[in-house]
Amino acid sequence: MTNLLETNETIARENKSIFKCHNVFVVNLMSSPGSGKTSLLEATIEHFKKKIRIGVIEGDICGKIDVKRLTRFKIPLVQINTDRWGGTCHLDANMIKNVLSDINISRIDLLFVENIGNLVCPAEFNIGENKKVLLSSVPEGDDKPLKYPLMFRVSDLLLLNKIDLLFHTNFNRKRFTKLVSNINPKLKILEISVKNGKGLDRWFSWLKNELSIS
Amino acid sequence: MTNLLETNETIARENKSIFKCHNVFVVNLMSSPGSGKTSLLEATIEHFKKKIRIGVIEGDICGKIDVKRLTRFKIPLVQINTDRWGGTCHLDANMIKNVLSDINISRIDLLFVENIGNLVCPAEFNIGENKKVLLSSVPEGDDKPLKYPLMFRVSDLLLLNKIDLLFHTNFNRKRFTKLVSNINPKLKILEISVKNGKGLDRWFSWLKNELSIS
Repeated sequence: MTNLLETNETIARENKSIFKCHNVFVVNLMSSPGSGKTSLLEATIEHFKKKIRIGVIEGDICGKIDVKRLTRFKIPLVQINTDRWGGTCHLDANMIKNVLSDINISRIDLLFVENIGNLVCPAEFNIGENKKVLLSSVPEGDDKPLKYPLMFRVSDLLLLNKIDLLFHTNFNRKRFTKLVSNINPKLKILEISVKNGKGLDRWFSWLKNELSIS
Repeated sequence: MTNLLETNETIARENKSIFKCHNVFVVNLMSSPGSGKTSLLEATIEHFKKKIRIGVIEGDICGKIDVKRLTRFKIPLVQINTDRWGGTCHLDANMIKNVLSDINISRIDLLFVENIGNLVCPAEFNIGENKKVLLSSVPEGDDKPLKYPLMFRVSDLLLLNKIDLLFHTNFNRKRFTKLVSNINPKLKILEISVKNGKGLDRWFSWLKNELSIS
C-alpha cells in the first residue's frame, strides 16, 4: 500500500507539472454516489461556457452515462472506466496521465475530474490537482465527517448540496459545521442547491477567485 | 487481486459453515454513505427485540458512532474499524472471522453486518453471509444501477429508502425499476421510509420468511 501511494505521488507530481506548464487549473471533484457531482458540473459549465474553456474527465466503474449528459456542451470530455483496472473504486494519478493526450489540455483553462462516487479511497490518491472539492449532500446526514474523516481532512472546499431538502430531513447544520471544523478548521463550507440554484453564485465566485478571473 | 479474492472466498466459506453450525442467519447490509443503514437497523431491532436475538457487526473506517446508536438495545455488538487495515473501504471475510469470538454467535439468531458505506468494493467481498441486502435511497438518484452494476447484480434484496422524499426529487421510479431489472431481473425491490415507517412491514415479513419464523 505504501509503495502504491508513493508511486501515485510521483505520477501526481508529474501531472501537476504538466498542468502548470499548460496553465490549466484542475479540480478533483469527489463525493458519495448521488450527491450531485454531474449536476453541479452541468450548472458550472453552463455558467462559464462563454468565459472560460472547461474540460471534464469523468471517472466511473463502467458506462458513459455522465459523459453523455455533458456532450451537449461540446467541450473536451474523456471517460475513464476503471473496470479496465479491475473496477477500482477511485481514480489515481496514472489513470489521469493516460488520458491527458486525449483531452488536449493546451486548449483548456479549467479541468474538472469527476472522481468515482466514494468517500473512502479517492481521498488517498492525489492526481496532480490544484484543489480537491468535496460535495456532500443534506440527505446523506450530518454525521459523515465522523465516518469519513480523511475525505474532509484533505479537501480544500466543501459544497453542501441539496440544501433545498433541509427541512425534509433531520440534518443538523450546526452539528455538521462543528464536526467538519473539528477535522479541518480551515475547510470552507458553501451551502448550495444545484436544483434551485441557491448558493451557486458563491461557488462560481470561489472558482473565479482561484482562476484569477473577474 | 485474484488471489486476494480467492483467499477471501475460502475464509467466507469457513464463516458460512460456522454460521450454519450455530443456526445464525447473516445479512450483509450494504449501501452508499448516508442511505440509512443504521436507522434501518434501529427500526428492525426495535421491531424484533422480543421475538428474536439480534447481533450487529458494525463496519466503519474509524470511530464508534453507529455502535453507540445501537447500545441502548443491549444486544451483542462489535465494531470493526478498518483503519487497522489501512482504512480499507470494505469489510472482508477475514475481518468478520476475527471478531466472531467477540460476539458469541451461539446466542444470536440474526446477525447484521453493516458494511462500510460504499457501492463499489463491498460487492466483491463475500463474508459468508446468507443474504446481501442493498439499501438505496431516493436522493441518490435513479441512475445508480447503471453506475454500480456489480452491487445490484450480487444483491438478494433491494430496499429503496427515503421514499418520503420522492416528490422533492426528480427520482423516476419506472426508470430505476427498469435499470435494476436489466441488471438483475430477480432482484426484489421494497420501497421503504425508515423515517415514517412506510413499507417496513414488508421488510420485516421478508426477514421473517428468510428466518422461517411467523
